[in-house]
Amino acid sequence: MFQAKIRSDTLKGIVNIISTLVDEAKFNISPEGLNLKAVDPAHVAMIDLNVKKEAFEEYSADETKIGVDLDKIKDVLKLASSGDMVEMSQDEEKSRLVMKVGNIVRRMNLVDTSSMSDPRVPELNLPAVVELAVGEIQKGIKAAESVSDHIALTAEEGYFELYSEGDTDSVNLRLEKDQLKEISVEGKARSLFPLDYFSNLVKAIPSDTSVRINLGNNYPVKIMFNLADGKGNVGYLLAPRIESD
Amino acid sequence: MFQAKIRSDTLKGIVNIISTLVDEAKFNISPEGLNLKAVDPAHVAMIDLNVKKEAFEEYSADETKIGVDLDKIKDVLKLASSGDMVEMSQDEEKSRLVMKVGNIVRRMNLVDTSSMSDPRVPELNLPAVVELAVGEIQKGIKAAESVSDHIALTAEEGYFELYSEGDTDSVNLRLEKDQLKEISVEGKARSLFPLDYFSNLVKAIPSDTSVRINLGNNYPVKIMFNLADGKGNVGYLLAPRIESD
Amino acid sequence: MFQAKIRSDTLKGIVNIISTLVDEAKFNISPEGLNLKAVDPAHVAMIDLNVKKEAFEEYSADETKIGVDLDKIKDVLKLASSGDMVEMSQDEEKSRLVMKVGNIVRRMNLVDTSSMSDPRVPELNLPAVVELAVGEIQKGIKAAESVSDHIALTAEEGYFELYSEGDTDSVNLRLEKDQLKEISVEGKARSLFPLDYFSNLVKAIPSDTSVRINLGNNYPVKIMFNLADGKGNVGYLLAPRIESD
Repeated sequence: MFQAKIRSDTLKGIVNIISTLVDEAKFNISPEGLNLKAVDPAHVAMIDLNVKKEAFEEYSADETKIGVDLDKIKDVLKLASSGDMVEMSQDEEKSRLVMKVGNIVRRMNLVDTSSMSDPRVPELNLPAVVELAVGEIQKGIKAAESVSDHIALTAEEGYFELYSEGDTDSVNLRLEKDQLKEISVEGKARSLFPLDYFSNLVKAIPSDTSVRINLGNNYPVKIMFNLADGKGNVGYLLAPRIESD
Repeated sequence: MFQAKIRSDTLKGIVNIISTLVDEAKFNISPEGLNLKAVDPAHVAMIDLNVKKEAFEEYSADETKIGVDLDKIKDVLKLASSGDMVEMSQDEEKSRLVMKVGNIVRRMNLVDTSSMSDPRVPELNLPAVVELAVGEIQKGIKAAESVSDHIALTAEEGYFELYSEGDTDSVNLRLEKDQLKEISVEGKARSLFPLDYFSNLVKAIPSDTSVRINLGNNYPVKIMFNLADGKGNVGYLLAPRIESD
Repeated sequence: MFQAKIRSDTLKGIVNIISTLVDEAKFNISPEGLNLKAVDPAHVAMIDLNVKKEAFEEYSADETKIGVDLDKIKDVLKLASSGDMVEMSQDEEKSRLVMKVGNIVRRMNLVDTSSMSDPRVPELNLPAVVELAVGEIQKGIKAAESVSDHIALTAEEGYFELYSEGDTDSVNLRLEKDQLKEISVEGKARSLFPLDYFSNLVKAIPSDTSVRINLGNNYPVKIMFNLADGKGNVGYLLAPRIESD
């Protein structure tokens, strides 16, 4: 059983993050809230998302799993104005999700979750920690996209840098200590990542959100942030690319 | 002879409605105003539109017929800001329509109306009557479009419902008596319609417009509303689809 | 050596004008400012643009030539909000241009200018002079585009007219003496021009800009205007088309 009511903006924020990685998602639902673990089809990135029941206006659930097509949720969210409420309930007999916005009711078939196993979230030892408002790097990402498909993240004592290099041009964005909320690194940590994954995620996060980035040398990056006014959180892991030179 | 001056917004409203059905239109012009009767090429819908001379700022005409390409009128309307006046006059010698917005004059060849006969508007006996602000159903239409190509309209004592069903999902919008301006039906009236026609019309009507819907069982629907601040009116007939089950 | 700082809006205005004609541009740089002379690949139009050093917030340069890909400059300008500063400097060793907006640095390869010779600006004797705010004709241009690929400009004692004629429709915009800042013509001057070139230029000029048009009979038109708050100026020459009738 699952029955909930949530502000459309909150749900929109959650769906935007998840749909940077997958089209269909399996939510693990419990009386305390919901969790989602997913990897993209190419196994380049992984997301681990939690939303507490307090993020909802109303929430009541048993342990259950719900598989949904995120495009359908987005269709419904397009009908909601900012501030509107969205009601959801699981119709277990017909294995459908019923969503309600204002007078409109949409019933949608659930996605079969039997083949969707939860990925195991690896333990990583990432020596560098950077914290900053994500808005600080959103323009830099946009700049990088016009020169390359990759982006190198570097943390060193006193600064955090994004660097992209193409055949003829390069872009870099360097944030000094005073533009960061926190930086803690011994020596230097630098890894190269696929720009599209990094960019899609960074653009989906509201610009005033504080993100915490854990970085190593030629190692995955872990990006952590809150959503739903702190009543939810996301851990996002992105695999590195091998630098060729 | 035909010479008139009209607010660009008023003309825009009229053209938007007509162009949901046809690309070229024949206006029957008289000293009292203009009338248009048209069916779409597939003969699925029919429109009967009247605009009184009072809808115009200036109006002076004999009995005449004017065939126009609606895209050309739209081109001219794009040059007008809200509140601008549009002047029109028939150049009978050259069978052209001359339109003026500000300093710009466009002369356009008229469409030959000799082969455009007026369709006969059928008399229908439609037992159910519903009246509502069209804005109430515009979002529901949008929701329906993501699941199906058809929409069923149902009126029964106390409510009016729009329902669309696709292979996996369904959408319905139910308006209770207190959300309607009027409902009058004996028993139940239900018919299925092609969603694209219904949607194009509903979206072209300003959302605060009151529409009157006459409905039967597996029968055409008639939709009536005013335009041009009540100085014009539209009757729109849409043929039903056969329900397969 | 070239090093400068400029308001992003000012640079945007300059680039918009140049890119109506060419994708790559060679700037001739001197201690007093910069100059560009360019013809489009089809040799239909020519631009002669000057920007004084006073248009920049900071400016310091020797005699040099810089070839740039305008799309890259536009990429950088997209990162700037209105009021932001853009810093530019030539990295002579690596023959690169370094552009800076906020924390973002983009390094771009310069375009080889060795094969880009400056076109010679011809002396023309154009009898008619018209001056007007370019905004007066921007809507007329838009109207003309829906009927034809050509536009005729006519100046005669007391008025200036734009006229386009297609197979079935025509558009004209006539500005009387009191809508013009100046008109001076003996007899009549009339020439036909390719609408796309004329339109692209006219639309790229801010609508409150005063433009001076020199016109002859079946002769090129010269269009002159200021940019960068009067600290820059443009002369634009457009070749006529032969009228067929």
